[in-house]
Amino acid sequence: MITENNNSIFPKGEPLSKDWFTGDAFLFPLIAKDKNNEFSAGSVTFEPNARTNWHTHPKGQVLIVTEGNGFYQEKGKPIQVITKGNVVTIPENVTHWHGASATTKLVHIAITNYKEEVQVTWLQPVSDEEYNIANHQ
Amino acid sequence: MITENNNSIFPKGEPLSKDWFTGDAFLFPLIAKDKNNEFSAGSVTFEPNARTNWHTHPKGQVLIVTEGNGFYQEKGKPIQVITKGNVVTIPENVTHWHGASATTKLVHIAITNYKEEVQVTWLQPVSDEEYNIANHQ
Repeated sequence: MITENNNSIFPKGEPLSKDWFTGDAFLFPLIAKDKNNEFSAGSVTFEPNARTNWHTHPKGQVLIVTEGNGFYQEKGKPIQVITKGNVVTIPENVTHWHGASATTKLVHIAITNYKEEVQVTWLQPVSDEEYNIANHQ
Repeated sequence: MITENNNSIFPKGEPLSKDWFTGDAFLFPLIAKDKNNEFSAGSVTFEPNARTNWHTHPKGQVLIVTEGNGFYQEKGKPIQVITKGNVVTIPENVTHWHGASATTKLVHIAITNYKEEVQVTWLQPVSDEEYNIANHQ
Protein backbone atom coordinates (compact mmCIF):
# COMPACT_ATOMS: atom_id res chain seq x y z
CA MET A 1 0.00 0.00 0.00
CA ILE A 2 1.42 3.40 -1.01
CA THR A 3 -0.50 6.21 0.69
CA GLU A 4 -0.43 9.57 -1.10
CA ASN A 5 0.75 12.50 0.99
CA ASN A 6 -0.80 15.65 -0.48
CA ASN A 7 1.67 18.53 -0.83
CA SER A 8 4.44 16.44 0.71
CA ILE A 9 7.59 15.75 -1.31
CA PHE A 10 7.24 11.96 -1.12
CA PRO A 11 4.43 9.45 -0.57
CA LYS A 12 4.15 8.13 2.98
CA GLY A 13 5.16 4.66 1.86
CA GLU A 14 4.71 1.51 3.93
CA PRO A 15 3.83 1.24 7.63
CA LEU A 16 6.82 0.63 9.91
CA SER A 17 6.76 -2.28 12.33
CA LYS A 18 5.05 -1.91 15.71
CA ASP A 19 7.99 -3.98 17.03
CA TRP A 20 10.25 -0.93 16.67
CA PHE A 21 7.87 2.04 16.49
CA THR A 22 5.08 3.31 18.73
CA GLY A 23 2.08 4.68 16.82
CA ASP A 24 1.77 5.18 13.08
CA ALA A 25 5.09 5.64 11.28
CA PHE A 26 5.78 5.04 7.57
CA LEU A 27 8.83 4.56 5.34
CA PHE A 28 9.22 5.58 1.71
CA PRO A 29 12.62 4.24 0.55
CA LEU A 30 14.76 6.64 -1.52
CA ILE A 31 18.28 5.24 -1.86
CA ALA A 32 19.65 1.70 -1.48
CA LYS A 33 23.21 0.83 -0.48
CA ASP A 34 25.32 0.07 -3.53
CA LYS A 35 28.98 0.08 -4.56
CA ASN A 36 29.15 3.89 -4.25
CA ASN A 37 26.64 4.68 -1.51
CA GLU A 38 27.68 3.21 1.85
CA PHE A 39 24.27 4.14 3.29
CA SER A 40 20.59 3.84 2.60
CA ALA A 41 18.12 6.71 2.74
CA GLY A 42 14.37 7.04 3.07
CA SER A 43 11.60 9.46 3.98
CA VAL A 44 10.05 8.62 7.35
CA THR A 45 6.63 10.03 8.30
CA PHE A 46 5.54 10.02 11.95
CA GLU A 47 1.88 10.79 12.62
CA PRO A 48 1.18 12.69 15.87
CA ASN A 49 2.23 10.55 18.89
CA ALA A 50 4.38 8.23 16.75
CA ARG A 51 8.04 7.70 17.61
CA THR A 52 10.87 5.23 17.24
CA ASN A 53 11.91 2.86 20.00
CA TRP A 54 15.17 3.74 21.69
CA HIS A 55 17.93 2.56 19.32
CA THR A 56 21.56 2.91 18.22
CA HIS A 57 23.36 3.08 14.87
CA PRO A 58 26.83 1.50 14.61
CA LYS A 59 28.05 4.13 12.08
CA GLY A 60 25.64 7.01 12.78
CA GLN A 61 22.70 8.51 10.93
CA VAL A 62 21.70 11.94 9.62
CA LEU A 63 18.12 13.25 9.80
CA ILE A 64 16.94 16.06 7.50
CA VAL A 65 13.53 17.34 8.62
CA THR A 66 11.41 18.14 5.55
CA GLU A 67 8.00 18.81 7.17
CA GLY A 68 6.32 19.31 10.52
CA ASN A 69 8.07 19.11 13.85
CA GLY A 70 8.85 16.74 16.66
CA PHE A 71 11.60 15.58 18.99
CA TYR A 72 15.10 14.09 19.12
CA GLN A 73 16.63 12.84 22.35
CA GLU A 74 19.88 11.13 23.28
CA LYS A 75 19.69 9.01 26.46
CA GLY A 76 20.36 11.12 29.55
CA LYS A 77 20.35 14.40 27.60
CA PRO A 78 17.71 17.13 27.19
CA ILE A 79 14.98 16.60 24.59
CA GLN A 80 15.51 18.70 21.45
CA VAL A 81 12.64 20.13 19.42
CA ILE A 82 13.30 19.55 15.69
CA THR A 83 11.48 21.27 12.85
CA LYS A 84 11.41 21.65 9.04
CA GLY A 85 14.88 22.46 7.74
CA ASN A 86 16.78 21.08 10.76
CA VAL A 87 19.59 18.59 10.31
CA VAL A 88 20.48 16.17 13.11
CA THR A 89 23.80 14.29 12.99
CA ILE A 90 23.49 11.23 15.22
CA PRO A 91 26.79 9.77 16.46
CA GLU A 92 27.63 6.08 16.39
CA ASN A 93 26.50 3.88 19.30
CA VAL A 94 24.46 6.57 21.07
CA THR A 95 21.08 5.45 22.44
CA HIS A 96 18.40 7.85 21.17
CA TRP A 97 14.88 8.24 19.80
CA HIS A 98 13.04 10.58 17.42
CA GLY A 99 9.45 11.15 16.47
CA ALA A 100 6.46 13.46 16.13
CA SER A 101 4.96 15.54 18.91
CA ALA A 102 1.60 14.62 20.40
CA THR A 103 -0.12 17.17 18.16
CA THR A 104 2.02 17.50 15.01
CA LYS A 105 3.39 15.19 12.36
CA LEU A 106 7.11 14.92 11.61
CA VAL A 107 8.62 13.97 8.25
CA HIS A 108 12.37 13.50 7.87
CA ILE A 109 14.80 12.01 5.43
CA ALA A 110 17.05 9.54 7.25
CA ILE A 111 20.49 8.76 5.79
CA THR A 112 21.79 5.69 7.62
CA ASN A 113 25.36 4.48 7.28
CA TYR A 114 26.28 0.81 7.30
CA LYS A 115 28.97 -0.75 9.47
CA GLU A 116 29.51 -3.90 7.48
CA GLU A 117 25.89 -5.06 7.08
CA VAL A 118 24.43 -3.45 10.23
CA GLN A 119 22.56 -0.12 10.37
CA VAL A 120 20.57 -0.18 13.60
CA THR A 121 20.15 -1.98 16.91
CA TRP A 122 16.62 -1.69 18.32
CA LEU A 123 16.00 -1.34 22.07
CA GLN A 124 12.92 -0.80 24.27
CA PRO A 125 9.99 1.49 23.39
CA VAL A 126 9.93 5.12 24.52
CA SER A 127 7.43 4.89 27.36
CA ASP A 128 4.41 7.19 27.55
CA GLU A 129 6.04 8.71 30.65
CA GLU A 130 9.24 9.48 28.76
CA TYR A 131 7.25 10.77 25.77
CA ASN A 132 4.98 12.98 27.88
CA ILE A 133 8.02 14.80 29.27
CA ALA A 134 8.88 15.85 25.71
CA ASN A 135 5.37 17.16 25.15
CA HIS A 136 5.15 19.11 28.41
CA GLN A 137 8.56 20.72 28.61
CA MET B 1 24.85 36.35 2.54
CA ILE B 2 22.06 33.91 3.38
CA THR B 3 18.97 34.52 1.25
CA GLU B 4 15.68 33.39 2.73
CA ASN B 5 13.61 31.10 0.55
CA ASN B 6 9.96 31.52 1.57
CA ASN B 7 8.13 28.23 1.96
CA SER B 8 11.21 26.27 0.95
CA ILE B 9 12.72 23.76 3.36
CA PHE B 10 16.14 25.44 3.46
CA PRO B 11 17.54 28.91 2.78
CA LYS B 12 19.07 29.35 -0.65
CA GLY B 13 22.52 29.78 0.85
CA GLU B 14 25.54 31.17 -0.98
CA PRO B 15 25.93 31.78 -4.74
CA LEU B 16 27.81 29.04 -6.57
CA SER B 17 30.80 29.95 -8.74
CA LYS B 18 30.25 31.12 -12.32
CA ASP B 19 33.35 29.04 -13.10
CA TRP B 20 31.27 25.85 -12.72
CA PHE B 21 27.65 26.99 -13.07
CA THR B 22 25.76 28.96 -15.72
CA GLY B 23 23.20 31.40 -14.31
CA ASP B 24 22.19 31.81 -10.69
CA ALA B 25 22.72 28.72 -8.54
CA PHE B 26 23.08 28.60 -4.74
CA LEU B 27 24.33 26.12 -2.14
CA PHE B 28 23.08 25.68 1.43
CA PRO B 29 25.39 23.10 3.09
CA LEU B 30 23.65 20.42 5.19
CA ILE B 31 26.15 17.69 6.07
CA ALA B 32 29.95 17.69 6.14
CA LYS B 33 32.14 14.63 5.63
CA ASP B 34 33.21 13.18 8.98
CA LYS B 35 34.36 9.87 10.43
CA ASN B 36 30.92 8.30 9.83
CA ASN B 37 29.64 10.11 6.75
CA GLU B 38 31.79 9.41 3.68
CA PHE B 39 29.90 12.11 1.77
CA SER B 40 28.80 15.70 2.03
CA ALA B 41 25.28 16.93 1.37
CA GLY B 42 23.69 20.27 0.56
CA SER B 43 20.59 21.89 -0.87
CA VAL B 44 21.23 23.37 -4.32
CA THR B 45 18.82 25.95 -5.77
CA PHE B 46 18.89 26.66 -9.51
CA GLU B 47 16.97 29.72 -10.68
CA PRO B 48 15.35 29.43 -14.14
CA ASN B 49 18.06 28.95 -16.83
CA ALA B 50 20.71 27.99 -14.26
CA ARG B 51 22.61 24.71 -14.62
CA THR B 52 25.85 23.01 -13.72
CA ASN B 53 28.72 22.66 -16.13
CA TRP B 54 29.25 19.18 -17.47
CA HIS B 55 31.06 17.26 -14.73
CA THR B 56 31.86 13.85 -13.24
CA HIS B 57 31.93 12.38 -9.72
CA PRO B 58 34.59 9.75 -8.92
CA LYS B 59 32.26 7.89 -6.48
CA GLY B 60 28.83 9.02 -7.70
CA GLN B 61 26.18 11.36 -6.35
CA VAL B 62 22.49 11.16 -5.44
CA LEU B 63 20.05 13.99 -6.16
CA ILE B 64 16.76 14.25 -4.24
CA VAL B 65 14.49 16.86 -5.86
CA THR B 66 12.64 18.81 -3.16
CA GLU B 67 11.03 21.59 -5.21
CA GLY B 68 10.36 22.68 -8.77
CA ASN B 69 11.56 20.86 -11.84
CA GLY B 70 14.38 20.77 -14.34
CA PHE B 71 16.70 18.44 -16.21
CA TYR B 72 19.33 15.73 -15.80
CA GLN B 73 21.40 14.48 -18.71
CA GLU B 74 24.25 12.02 -19.10
CA LYS B 75 26.52 12.71 -22.11
CA GLY B 76 25.17 11.04 -25.25
CA LYS B 77 21.88 10.04 -23.59
CA PRO B 78 18.37 11.55 -23.71
CA ILE B 79 17.60 14.49 -21.44
CA GLN B 80 15.46 13.49 -18.43
CA VAL B 81 12.89 15.81 -16.89
CA ILE B 82 13.20 15.71 -13.07
CA THR B 83 10.63 17.00 -10.62
CA LYS B 84 9.79 17.25 -6.90
CA GLY B 85 10.09 13.84 -5.26
CA ASN B 86 12.40 12.32 -7.91
CA VAL B 87 15.66 10.65 -6.90
CA VAL B 88 18.56 10.45 -9.38
CA THR B 89 21.45 8.08 -8.71
CA ILE B 90 24.46 9.28 -10.71
CA PRO B 91 27.11 6.65 -11.42
CA GLU B 92 30.83 7.22 -10.95
CA ASN B 93 32.83 8.83 -13.77
CA VAL B 94 29.82 9.58 -15.99
CA THR B 95 29.85 13.01 -17.66
CA HIS B 96 26.53 14.74 -16.94
CA TRP B 97 24.76 17.99 -16.04
CA HIS B 98 21.66 19.05 -14.09
CA GLY B 99 19.74 22.24 -13.60
CA ALA B 100 16.51 24.21 -13.82
CA SER B 101 14.40 24.63 -16.93
CA ALA B 102 14.25 27.97 -18.72
CA THR B 103 11.00 28.81 -16.93
CA THR B 104 11.06 26.96 -13.58
CA LYS B 105 13.39 26.76 -10.61
CA LEU B 106 14.85 23.47 -9.40
CA VAL B 107 15.86 22.68 -5.81
CA HIS B 108 17.57 19.40 -4.95
CA ILE B 109 19.51 17.89 -2.11
CA ALA B 110 22.81 16.53 -3.44
CA ILE B 111 24.57 13.75 -1.53
CA THR B 112 28.09 13.50 -2.93
CA ASN B 113 30.44 10.66 -2.07
CA TYR B 114 34.17 11.11 -1.68
CA LYS B 115 36.82 9.01 -3.37
CA GLU B 116 39.71 9.81 -1.10
CA GLU B 117 39.48 13.62 -1.05
CA VAL B 118 37.84 14.13 -4.46
CA GLN B 119 34.11 14.67 -5.09
CA VAL B 120 33.85 16.26 -8.52
CA THR B 121 35.78 17.04 -11.71
CA TRP B 122 34.41 20.07 -13.55
CA LEU B 123 34.32 20.22 -17.36
CA GLN B 124 33.01 22.72 -19.95
CA PRO B 125 29.73 24.69 -19.60
CA VAL B 126 26.48 23.31 -21.01
CA SER B 127 26.15 25.50 -24.11
CA ASP B 128 22.97 27.45 -24.85
CA GLU B 129 22.51 25.14 -27.86
CA GLU B 130 22.69 22.03 -25.65
CA TYR B 131 20.44 23.65 -23.03
CA ASN B 132 17.84 24.79 -25.58
CA ILE B 133 17.38 21.20 -26.74
CA ALA B 134 16.28 20.32 -23.19
CA ASN B 135 13.77 23.15 -23.17
CA HIS B 136 12.27 22.39 -26.58
CA GLN B 137 12.02 18.61 -26.52
